[in-house]
Amino acid sequence: MNAFETVQTVLAVRAFQDKPVPTEVKNRILEAARLTGSGSNHQPWHFILIENRAELQQLGAVARTGPYTAQAAFAVVVIIERSPIALSDGSRAIQSMLLTAWADGVGSNWVGFVPMPEVSKLLDIPDTLDVLAILPFGYPTKDIGQGKKNRKAPEEVFHIGKFGNPYAPK
Amino acid sequence: MNAFETVQTVLAVRAFQDKPVPTEVKNRILEAARLTGSGSNHQPWHFILIENRAELQQLGAVARTGPYTAQAAFAVVVIIERSPIALSDGSRAIQSMLLTAWADGVGSNWVGFVPMPEVSKLLDIPDTLDVLAILPFGYPTKDIGQGKKNRKAPEEVFHIGKFGNPYAPK
Repeated sequence: MNAFETVQTVLAVRAFQDKPVPTEVKNRILEAARLTGSGSNHQPWHFILIENRAELQQLGAVARTGPYTAQAAFAVVVIIERSPIALSDGSRAIQSMLLTAWADGVGSNWVGFVPMPEVSKLLDIPDTLDVLAILPFGYPTKDIGQGKKNRKAPEEVFHIGKFGNPYAPK
Repeated sequence: MNAFETVQTVLAVRAFQDKPVPTEVKNRILEAARLTGSGSNHQPWHFILIENRAELQQLGAVARTGPYTAQAAFAVVVIIERSPIALSDGSRAIQSMLLTAWADGVGSNWVGFVPMPEVSKLLDIPDTLDVLAILPFGYPTKDIGQGKKNRKAPEEVFHIGKFGNPYAPK
């Protein structure tokens, strides 16, 4: 599955099989984050791997929008410096992880984008850094479609030459 | 080349061959952006395709950090709504485009992350939207390495269980 096929088919996964993800796959997902490009190559990020069941349950209990983290095979908590560019860089690293995982059959979903002080406290995260996301990872419980996505039409978001001049790829 | 290999090898490209990129490849890169996931599926973005040489030259002239846009085969200007989540979503869409392009041998580089009022004016972008990036695309003029990247060591950015407990994948 090449990069575009991965982008085309990846979907959010919020229910996971009770099946471990091999260490090799887990490490590849983390590496995808570490290797992602960032503004001025500043790499303003940290990634915390959570794989112990009790710790996943604790994390799920405080992850307001992602209680299913408790059932994930593992989770990666994405921590960033407090700046717009770090927010952008961290988001790119997350996209790299989601695509790398999906190409190995592993699903996830972005949990967060809300202040998560309880998560910071639980994981001893320094006050100067923010939690950008919790990414619970695991094998999906069901076949979740063949990349059927609900998206705006091309001519709603594509323009050519200038804003307001719609472009629809043929 | 699968998603991880693409993440591993992609590098910034700032010099392009004078060689067109097939429409099919161009459209695939745009589609990768449109199909990217976003917070609450809000899709807070627009993408302007610039492919006319005179327009690329005008864009390069006002793209402070990316004058090489003038030599690109084409460029995509990424426009977002004015919010942190739109900044994050737009960054994910950009990562999808950069990876999709690279898998087809097409390079790019993120130009921007500075206010670009001249670009907004040139492209008739509404005042309520921001230019997040200009992405000039084209075939690289030279073989730019085999994915050799300058990155922090794994144990500097990976933690396990809690922040401050380093993790180094074996």
